[in-house]
Amino acid sequence: MSISDTRGLSTIILAAGEGTRMKSKKSKVLHKVLGKSLIQHVINAAKYAGSEKTCLVIGYKGEEVKEAIGDGVEYAVQKERLGTGHAVMQAESFIGEEGDILVLYGDTPLITGETLKNMIETHRKEQNGVTILSAIVEDPTGYGRIIRDESGNFVKNVEHKDANEEELKVREINGGMYCFQAKLLKEALKELTNDNVQGEYYLTDTLHIILSKGYKVNAMIVKDTNEILGVNSRAQLSEVTQIMKRRINKKFMDEGVTIIDPENTYIEPDVSIGIDTIIYPGSIIQGETVIGEDCIIGPNTRIEHAKIGNDVSIESSVVLESEIGLSTTVGPFAYIRPNSKIGSHIKIGDFVEVKNSTIGNHTKVSHLTYIGDADVGANVNFGCGTVIVNYDGRKKHRTTIEDGAFIGCNTNLVSPVTVHKEAYTAAGSTITEDVPSRALGIARARQINKENWVDKKNNR
Amino acid sequence: MSISDTRGLSTIILAAGEGTRMKSKKSKVLHKVLGKSLIQHVINAAKYAGSEKTCLVIGYKGEEVKEAIGDGVEYAVQKERLGTGHAVMQAESFIGEEGDILVLYGDTPLITGETLKNMIETHRKEQNGVTILSAIVEDPTGYGRIIRDESGNFVKNVEHKDANEEELKVREINGGMYCFQAKLLKEALKELTNDNVQGEYYLTDTLHIILSKGYKVNAMIVKDTNEILGVNSRAQLSEVTQIMKRRINKKFMDEGVTIIDPENTYIEPDVSIGIDTIIYPGSIIQGETVIGEDCIIGPNTRIEHAKIGNDVSIESSVVLESEIGLSTTVGPFAYIRPNSKIGSHIKIGDFVEVKNSTIGNHTKVSHLTYIGDADVGANVNFGCGTVIVNYDGRKKHRTTIEDGAFIGCNTNLVSPVTVHKEAYTAAGSTITEDVPSRALGIARARQINKENWVDKKNNR
Amino acid sequence: MSISDTRGLSTIILAAGEGTRMKSKKSKVLHKVLGKSLIQHVINAAKYAGSEKTCLVIGYKGEEVKEAIGDGVEYAVQKERLGTGHAVMQAESFIGEEGDILVLYGDTPLITGETLKNMIETHRKEQNGVTILSAIVEDPTGYGRIIRDESGNFVKNVEHKDANEEELKVREINGGMYCFQAKLLKEALKELTNDNVQGEYYLTDTLHIILSKGYKVNAMIVKDTNEILGVNSRAQLSEVTQIMKRRINKKFMDEGVTIIDPENTYIEPDVSIGIDTIIYPGSIIQGETVIGEDCIIGPNTRIEHAKIGNDVSIESSVVLESEIGLSTTVGPFAYIRPNSKIGSHIKIGDFVEVKNSTIGNHTKVSHLTYIGDADVGANVNFGCGTVIVNYDGRKKHRTTIEDGAFIGCNTNLVSPVTVHKEAYTAAGSTITEDVPSRALGIARARQINKENWVDKKNNR
Repeated sequence: MSISDTRGLSTIILAAGEGTRMKSKKSKVLHKVLGKSLIQHVINAAKYAGSEKTCLVIGYKGEEVKEAIGDGVEYAVQKERLGTGHAVMQAESFIGEEGDILVLYGDTPLITGETLKNMIETHRKEQNGVTILSAIVEDPTGYGRIIRDESGNFVKNVEHKDANEEELKVREINGGMYCFQAKLLKEALKELTNDNVQGEYYLTDTLHIILSKGYKVNAMIVKDTNEILGVNSRAQLSEVTQIMKRRINKKFMDEGVTIIDPENTYIEPDVSIGIDTIIYPGSIIQGETVIGEDCIIGPNTRIEHAKIGNDVSIESSVVLESEIGLSTTVGPFAYIRPNSKIGSHIKIGDFVEVKNSTIGNHTKVSHLTYIGDADVGANVNFGCGTVIVNYDGRKKHRTTIEDGAFIGCNTNLVSPVTVHKEAYTAAGSTITEDVPSRALGIARARQINKENWVDKKNNR
Repeated sequence: MSISDTRGLSTIILAAGEGTRMKSKKSKVLHKVLGKSLIQHVINAAKYAGSEKTCLVIGYKGEEVKEAIGDGVEYAVQKERLGTGHAVMQAESFIGEEGDILVLYGDTPLITGETLKNMIETHRKEQNGVTILSAIVEDPTGYGRIIRDESGNFVKNVEHKDANEEELKVREINGGMYCFQAKLLKEALKELTNDNVQGEYYLTDTLHIILSKGYKVNAMIVKDTNEILGVNSRAQLSEVTQIMKRRINKKFMDEGVTIIDPENTYIEPDVSIGIDTIIYPGSIIQGETVIGEDCIIGPNTRIEHAKIGNDVSIESSVVLESEIGLSTTVGPFAYIRPNSKIGSHIKIGDFVEVKNSTIGNHTKVSHLTYIGDADVGANVNFGCGTVIVNYDGRKKHRTTIEDGAFIGCNTNLVSPVTVHKEAYTAAGSTITEDVPSRALGIARARQINKENWVDKKNNR
Repeated sequence: MSISDTRGLSTIILAAGEGTRMKSKKSKVLHKVLGKSLIQHVINAAKYAGSEKTCLVIGYKGEEVKEAIGDGVEYAVQKERLGTGHAVMQAESFIGEEGDILVLYGDTPLITGETLKNMIETHRKEQNGVTILSAIVEDPTGYGRIIRDESGNFVKNVEHKDANEEELKVREINGGMYCFQAKLLKEALKELTNDNVQGEYYLTDTLHIILSKGYKVNAMIVKDTNEILGVNSRAQLSEVTQIMKRRINKKFMDEGVTIIDPENTYIEPDVSIGIDTIIYPGSIIQGETVIGEDCIIGPNTRIEHAKIGNDVSIESSVVLESEIGLSTTVGPFAYIRPNSKIGSHIKIGDFVEVKNSTIGNHTKVSHLTYIGDADVGANVNFGCGTVIVNYDGRKKHRTTIEDGAFIGCNTNLVSPVTVHKEAYTAAGSTITEDVPSRALGIARARQINKENWVDKKNNR
């Protein structure tokens, strides 16, 4: 038996279960942990470990799973649920004659690519027919046990209910994840029977079939037993979320990010953050967000799919699908909506919304302002209460504000309109026509004071 | 002794203590845990268990308690504090000749109605003269012990200081809550003496009096020892809050609600939430709020006494005493004040306040807008910066905006005023008169550009 | 040896280390825990304990430390890092002939002034040559052990690697902080050698030198072992932050403040808070903030260097370097910027910014308003959308609004301008000139309704 390290690897993920304890209208494996569905975490771990293709065995709410996960994987459908062996049998055509195959569960989001990689390496180095991922736990009640002989060799897998007194004491449990030689799995599946009380096909029987054919079977003990945790209820969904949260936050702290309170900071797995950035509590950082060095994020800030430069501070704000340059401050209470490109040394202050706009360096948008569908130059000053009137009831138009312009307070800029270089608009003006460079655009009535008006009013 | 299940049940709650460790100007039992005072939690638990009437024994700050709790209960006043027996003696006239009586403490908010119900059922089934609620604890130091004979029958209650070596080892403690046959309690109280070092009347002496008369006394062990926790300090107030928080959040998770981080989510006991709703961290849901299915609540959202339909999202916002229909989005950073009825498929965006208004389906209030005392139709579009001028310095008026109207940005609608069906208002207008259907209301000056104004200004 | 309680006390703090595990561009000891750098916490503890002067031994990033800490302390520079003894040798000229000297570490922010005070008192009462701060820990692995004889007298300090089997079992570890008689430390430093494998000068050798000269050496065991925790990584920085957070929150709860969730409330050490104030989760209270009694702070409120009177509520807001009087409500979603003096019985509502302004009693600023550089009287009413136009593009001016004025919605007040007593401004006006008392200032165009405008527009 000569085994090459470069032989192929593919993955079967079982995801047909109903998950009734979730009390959900949704497929269990589509519930999310830190921004990704349970099953997506497992797919990603397998991919990280070198798996080239993946087949999901779907059943309950299978169409929903298919729609959510899409074309990147193959699907097999398990119409009746007749056991884990039966589930894998549905993917028979996916199993090749060559290489290895991981069999995983769709509800164990904490399994890491690193562990699967180690498992595959162990599997190949030890030339195993199948390698089981096992775990040593405090309380093994209810789990299948890994029974070894005195030399530590795998003897069998025993279910809790079938275990004798001696076996019940064993604390090494079967984690339910396997790496098979594809060919051996294929053959073993053909020999599986449902000749048992439940009338089910058990995947664990394949271990004994393969062993009985003279191949080596071994179990690799996972270091962090959390990795095999399955999610069967919302309480477990939340537990798994906290574990992943801590794992991610620890990684960032190790890399030089200050997290004031890692229990109260929610960072998704694909985020990257530069050193000496400080994250205050109540912050949620999502998607493929990239944050630079020396930033101050939070408290209570949500950032999703954004790119933030160095030395930026974002307090009590929401930033979505946008870019922010260097040394810009945002908030408190700002809302940056998708497709905004905000430059460097900018102030986006309180109660400011920016949407689908570009803003040049050193511009100030201090307060109570809406910038939508606009191209704003550098060194522009927005007075308080400025509104870009981008929608006329039928369609949206763009506004241009050139470098050095000064927009007076409570100005309406009715799009499409251009305020040229270094032009001013007077406070309280509704600007409907372009303002030439260095001109003042003004559109307001002159003030009249009605003397003794209060007394007259009171007499009415 | 024939005991009927339908015999009456009433409750005495002891609430006269000073609670000096709270360091408070307020009565201890009025401090709140998740929106309800300590004593209200106890009153509610008794009511849940079938108690028909309740008498609070008040003393320190008694008037304050009376004012807070009101007429739903009776009151007895303990002027001097001479022990728990003395406290119950003050309620003597409340104790009838028939039925059973619960004696509880006003500072144990974690006692559940379920447990009290079990206790009463046990009491009646076992035909006990009195049933004690006891608990098995790790460290019984300081507590009264329940001493049983070899058959497990109740022998006596021993205070820690009076216990012998053997008794000190007993880990079953007296939880301080009782179910008495009313008549037996009444008789026993008459026999109570203060013939002891402290000169106090101990309620525990009644157990022994009743036992000595040949009645059965037993203790029912509570499953969750937290239920007997009393609050004597702010630290305990906070501990009890966390325990109740977890209990409530667990219940919602079991019922099919996703709570991202149950440590950081504060839901009060009378809230109801539909399945597949997701609650993000930092959210506080209060009062008798009802939330539908498939909603996304939070992060950092506070909702109080509101009714929220299905498929609604509310981010970083505050919603008070209002209704929201289906598939509406609120926030980030919106403030819905009392008496607002917001329909379905509506957008209430950022920096928007709605107060005492109705808003029809499919209307958009995207940003920086105030809608107060207004009746808004369906399919209305509010430009950014709209203000409903509902207050003239003397009184508030209502505004009507009919279906399909388009309110330009930075429009002031001076109430009382009506914008009729499908009418427009021009950006920057102050609308003081009704706008007819399909008309444009405009009130603004024409724009003038003062050329070279900047240079002239600089030369001044 | 006659020792007076009033003999001098000074402190050497070692702060030259590189702290590579922090992965930081910044000096380790300048990283902050609840608003103060690690080393500042230690400096403050020493000062509290009566230390009259402090010398920091700096090295790596020493200039940065000097700049951050400033002139209140002296500095010695350790150019090469040749051990703790070598570090103290750099401060030789700081060590006097009289009195006592504390030797502390710059990365142990949890050490309390109270503990150092006890240590000094013990040191002086026991007439020790040197007193070590030790701790009893569960797992002493890696730490130096305090070895005592049968009578409990200090025998020696043994490093983990040099300890024999018996010594390894000792769970009393050397906390690394010392109180020396200054003269003895000075002499002992002269005798220190680097005659060891590492070629370093160990401060612990001074203990044995002093002992060998016949002076008494003893170790005082610290009650709370957290006090000796050093910060070497961001994870430890975060752990230490949580411990200090809990310590501070416990203190406030003991003093009569309700903290709904102390895990989720971040109060810095110099804050003071009155009794019966309630702090909701997600709140951060910083700097030398003083909060009165009966306030409701939070949720999600940040207050820094502010003075808040009694009975104030501040929800989901940010308040910086300002004063607020009695019974004022702020937020949700308000931003009070520095140098604001806000009186009593005021409403600062949603989406309101106040900056560098005074506001008189009973004034209402309900929503969507900016008050900057203004002096506002009492009983003023601000309509929604009011903007104080304090900046003309060149400089900032002040605005005055006198008592009882009524500012209409969406008014611009172009500074410098005065609205006199009880004057009104009309909604939508840009006020550029003073409004006399009881007059109405109005500056807006009359409304025109363009009938059938929608149909004409559609036909275009």
